This record gives sequence, structure tokens and C-alpha cells, in this order.
Amino acid sequence: MEKPYVIGMDMGGTNTVFGVVDARGTVISKSAIKTGAHTDVNLYIEDLHDELIKLIDTAGGADKFKGIGIGAPNGNFYTGNIEFAPNLPWKGVIPFAKLVSEKLNIPAALTNDANAAAIGEMTYGAARGMKNFIMITLGTGVGSGIIIDGKLVYGHDGFAGELGHTTAICENGRLCGCGKHGCLETYCSATGVARTAREILSSTTKDSILRNIPVDSITSKDVYDAAVEGDDVAKEIFDYTGKILGRSLADFVAFSAPEAIILFGGLTKSGDFIMKPVRESMEENLLPLWKGKIKLLFSELKEADAAVLGASALAWEL
Amino acid sequence: MEKPYVIGMDMGGTNTVFGVVDARGTVISKSAIKTGAHTDVNLYIEDLHDELIKLIDTAGGADKFKGIGIGAPNGNFYTGNIEFAPNLPWKGVIPFAKLVSEKLNIPAALTNDANAAAIGEMTYGAARGMKNFIMITLGTGVGSGIIIDGKLVYGHDGFAGELGHTTAICENGRLCGCGKHGCLETYCSATGVARTAREILSSTTKDSILRNIPVDSITSKDVYDAAVEGDDVAKEIFDYTGKILGRSLADFVAFSAPEAIILFGGLTKSGDFIMKPVRESMEENLLPLWKGKIKLLFSELKEADAAVLGASALAWEL
Repeated sequence: MEKPYVIGMDMGGTNTVFGVVDARGTVISKSAIKTGAHTDVNLYIEDLHDELIKLIDTAGGADKFKGIGIGAPNGNFYTGNIEFAPNLPWKGVIPFAKLVSEKLNIPAALTNDANAAAIGEMTYGAARGMKNFIMITLGTGVGSGIIIDGKLVYGHDGFAGELGHTTAICENGRLCGCGKHGCLETYCSATGVARTAREILSSTTKDSILRNIPVDSITSKDVYDAAVEGDDVAKEIFDYTGKILGRSLADFVAFSAPEAIILFGGLTKSGDFIMKPVRESMEENLLPLWKGKIKLLFSELKEADAAVLGASALAWEL
Repeated sequence: MEKPYVIGMDMGGTNTVFGVVDARGTVISKSAIKTGAHTDVNLYIEDLHDELIKLIDTAGGADKFKGIGIGAPNGNFYTGNIEFAPNLPWKGVIPFAKLVSEKLNIPAALTNDANAAAIGEMTYGAARGMKNFIMITLGTGVGSGIIIDGKLVYGHDGFAGELGHTTAICENGRLCGCGKHGCLETYCSATGVARTAREILSSTTKDSILRNIPVDSITSKDVYDAAVEGDDVAKEIFDYTGKILGRSLADFVAFSAPEAIILFGGLTKSGDFIMKPVRESMEENLLPLWKGKIKLLFSELKEADAAVLGASALAWEL
């Protein structure tokens, strides 16, 4: 008999959220534990087991589950390891998929969260039926998952698809957490937008309602709210961000000639303020053969469930 | 019985070179016709047939051939068409693989020359046994072929791998033949090197033996010869070129996490003058997880045969 369920698990530095998902992408049940509270990964696994087993038992037991898909920072699909993740309490190389699988007696697979999002979009979302697309997640950082010929690109070592760390500004670019300068992530993430706001506000005397907020606590949400009010500086911030992102997207198209680029994450909520300059800049920088042909889409996964759905999709491939 | 031979055909704007190749990558026989001399593609096909049939008959007839692999500008693997190639005498969409295949009664497949070079390198050259690598051809332009999981990346439309037209200089970049500004090809091709030479010589008064050559006729070979003589301006030109190419290579690694990048073409003959700055700049721009791990190799195909071998490799996959 076909096993009707999978488990999707999304691990962040603070929380680990997991849920039972059926083949149509319905999240049947959901729960969470704290990630950061566990300095010993074995105690974390104990806690995870105790919470997850309740959902599994309610759904009819481990026999009903095809697998567990895990999205985790620095997760390596090939090895199932979490390798040197800076935002997790466990150092070095953790054989995470093996630990989970052995504890729960269900096969488990692991990748990073942006890759999981791409597989989720292909399985349940805006990329159903697509064989070639690129998923870009615009959150605190910029993540990416690349699908070619219907398969996620892992590369030689399992870590392909780090487009947030490609060069977006060639000269005198911003310092990135990775140690490089000018990475896309330092401009086109939520934190990048806040950084642009601080730069523009402190280097000009232009009038802006953003000046009512202490400059160091301005968020991308504040910039959006100001843009809605018609604030010119807020619009300038989005224009600047969109111009950089659009040019980078055009470069990604030159690599894998995708049918679509799918955007996900907080920054997409700024709607046309960001999307209009992104689209214009992408079109301007595409080779003639691609102009007007690359779809720019938003994720169709419900935000609250997207991370769990994305990770769960990996389990259907087990 | 296994068919022992394939035909490799490399079409340029001036000449079309073709040869009979065996499974070990030996070019058994070779010939050529003029491309540009034929304004009617049907007359070109007649001429091609007349020359090629001699090689085929000498090798034992069409039954001995598994296929014909063709490398052609703007060649689309999916359709077998040559589409709007600016440097060929035939306009619009030419069903080239079909024309060749029907005329010679041997199956034919077609792609662009850089893609053919990548498949050739995987079949007979430096990438034997590799499943993930990127081929960069540094000639008059900059071409690329990307191999992921042992397969060439064609993308949604067949035109993936145009890395010569990714952004290498973000602001005030050079105008490219494609209409964009700042493309890698405008800096890191043979013509890009000559352009850099002209810029440096005309914007400074630095002493250089390159000043003995009329500035508009300086070639990348002249720059190499000057560098061999110890000319500082020539070295500066290669440093500038290598710095840009290395940064772009690091960005490509972030996309597909290849085991190696393989370089081919005239510019590689400048040896360490170009390779040292390329390697340094690539390492500087790689994410920590890839530092020191990406092989930078030269093509191992004999230059005179490389184009025919590359195209022939496509035919084994038919």
C-alpha cells in the first residue's frame, strides 16, 4: 500500500517546526520545539521525538509515513549532515538525517531551507509542472534553490545554489557575513533594504517620514509603510534594491535558462514597489533572446505552511 | 553491431570543419568547406554532402556511423535549429540538423560550440569521469557549457549557459555586441584584452613596448609577447583581466558547485600571466566552504582537433 503521509521539518536557529503532510500538500497537523534551547543535539533529538511521535501516532503510526524531509541551515543532501551551521547551537558536522531517522524509524532526507522551498514549489506550488526554474527567497538573507530538468541542483559537494553570495556590486560593495564584499544578500534581503535606508538617510538631507524612526531601528516593513504613504525616499530605496536584484536575476537566467523565477519571502510583500523595478532591471539586462520570455512569479505556498511544505516535499522523493 | 564512428562538425562564420572520430577520440580523417561562401543554405548542404561523403565512404559507408554531432553558432539542441545567428549568411531559423541528417542518412544533433566543447571535454578530455563542471571558452568571445550530474544544461529553451553575457562590471561597463553593458565577454575575451590594452595605453603615459604597435591593431598575442619581455603595462592588463574573470568564476561556483572549471581557448596560452590573477581572484571571492577546493584546469583536447572532437561527442549520445 502507498504510504499516505510525509513529515516536513523546518529547522531555524530559534524554532524547529514540523508537520504531517498528505500528497495534496495539506498540512494535517503541526507542532514545534525550541532549537536554541538544546546545547546537546541528543537532547534535542529526544525532545523532537517526544513531540513528533504524538503527531505520528495520531496519523496511524510510523508505517503510514513515506519519509521525513528536513530543511536545515547548511544541510547537505548527499551526506544528510548539518555542516558548521553558524546559527545553530551544535558545532562541527552533525549526522542529523541519520539521528532523526534512527530515532523515529522513518527514512529521512535533508537539505537547506531554500532548496526545500524550491522542491515544495515544484510539488505543491507555483512551479507545478515546471522542469526548469529558480527559487529565490528574500528574507533576512537571500537564499536560492535551482531546478534543472525537474531535479534540484546539488552540485559536486551538495552545496550548489548559493546565489545570495554572488557579486551584485562589483566595486566597494558592502561587507557580507560570509566575509566577501558586494554579495546580493547585503542589498536585496530585508536587512539589505534597511541598510540602504540608513545609507540614503544619513548621506542626504532629503525629507522623509522615515526620519521619524531612529535610523538604526528602521526595518524593511517601515520602508514599505512609508512607500504606501507616498514617501519618495522609501520609493528610492525600493528602486535601488530592485535594480540590483533584477540585474542579478538576468545573470541567473544566462546560466540555466529557466522558464520562471519564483520569489518568496518578506520582501515580496512590498508588491509593485519592489517588483516593478526588479522586472524593469531584469528585462533591461536579459539577452535579446530572453526578453519578455522569463516568468517572474510569487510563491503560491501559504506563508505559515511554506517551510514545512517545502521540507515535506523532499520526503516524497525518498 | 556497435557502430564504430561518429562525425563531428564545427561550423564557424568562415569555415565548416568536420571529421570522422572513433570511440577513443581519434580523429581518423578531416576536411572542411567554406561557410560564408554559400548564401543559400541548400547549396551549402550540397557542398557539405559532397565533401563529407568521401570521408564516410572511406570509413566504410553510412552504416558505420552512429551519428553526426554539430557545433554551430546559436544552435538549439532541442529543435536542431540554428536560430538567428548573426555571423552566418543564412537569416532566421534554419532546421540544420534535419537538413544534414536527411541529406546524409545519418542521425544528427546540434548545439552551440561552447556546449560541444564541454561534452567533448567530458568524453575525451580533462573532465573524463566528472559529473559536475563548467567549461569556459576564452576566444574572440567568451562561451560556456555547464555540466550538472553528467548532463549538459540546456534549460527551458535550449539556450542555457551564456555566461559570457553575465555582468562582470556593474557600473559603466563596456558596451557588448549583445546590446548590454559590462558583459564578461567584453573584458575577458581576446578582444576584451585588446580593448583593455587600448584603454590603459591611451589613458596613461606609462612606458610600454606596446606603444611600438599602432594602438588599434594591438592583439592579445601582442600583450602576451610584451609580458614575456617583462613589460609592466602588459602585466597590468592581464592582472585586470584575471581579476574580473576570477570573480565571475567564483559566482559561477556559487550557482552549480562544480568539481572543476575548465578553460579553453587562445587566452589560456598566456599561461601564468593570466592564470595567477584568475586563481587569486577566484579564491578571494569564493565562499569559505569552497576555498581551495575548486579545480581550475586547462582543456586537454588538442587545439587543432578540439572543435571537431567536441561536436563529435554529442553524436555518441544520439
